[in-house]
Amino acid sequence: MSKAFELHRQLAADTIVVGDLELCRVLLMNDANYPWLILVPRQAKTCEVYELSEHHQALLWQEVTAIGQAMMQALGGHKLNIGALGNMVPQLHVHVIVRQPDDAAWPGPVWGKVPAVPYDAPGLETRLEQLRDLLQHD
Amino acid sequence: MSKAFELHRQLAADTIVVGDLELCRVLLMNDANYPWLILVPRQAKTCEVYELSEHHQALLWQEVTAIGQAMMQALGGHKLNIGALGNMVPQLHVHVIVRQPDDAAWPGPVWGKVPAVPYDAPGLETRLEQLRDLLQHD
Repeated sequence: MSKAFELHRQLAADTIVVGDLELCRVLLMNDANYPWLILVPRQAKTCEVYELSEHHQALLWQEVTAIGQAMMQALGGHKLNIGALGNMVPQLHVHVIVRQPDDAAWPGPVWGKVPAVPYDAPGLETRLEQLRDLLQHD
Repeated sequence: MSKAFELHRQLAADTIVVGDLELCRVLLMNDANYPWLILVPRQAKTCEVYELSEHHQALLWQEVTAIGQAMMQALGGHKLNIGALGNMVPQLHVHVIVRQPDDAAWPGPVWGKVPAVPYDAPGLETRLEQLRDLLQHD
């Protein structure tokens, strides 16, 4: 049985790849309602944070916190939301979402609130450029 | 102006104190639907994880991950949910929730799904005893 990292098909279907950090693949959720990243440790068969090595646990939270801070600053966010749920997609992944008081789900959590609004082509290009720039300077 | 840590009144109203870890006050959400802890760094005026020192950031995530793992193992949990949202209560706090496929909100997130079911006195006593035991061995 292969031990290689493979992105869960649901995550692959819902997101666009932004790039890779040292541990995580960084994905953009295809929902223009919010600047919403998903970080997935490139490790095979991991469902819970505590299944990672201590080194990788620390690295995961460092990457989550740093990219969250960079997004908040670059986008003038009001509140950062961080969540590791995985009730429906078991592969370990962490949501990092910039919230604004006038966004579609505020002040509730984003999950299951309103239908996703897929990016149009120019919106996606702008967002990816912005995020890839953050990743490079992270 | 005081710089002392003070628990936000909404968190105080919704929870029972379990105890203190090195950084965080550990609170039990008064909702018998789920084993649900809230960890609050005992730091004044902090809203975002990245506002903590790097040392405290690392400590926060270590405490969150360790207590989550301990709860999952002690309670036979199906999936751990970790969330730092804070859209309604700005004081930095992290939710650590043990989920089961037959719980009240599964597979959705717990927030805003079903009304909280306050613990009765014996239920609360049992739960607190269990959790304080985990904290001591953490």
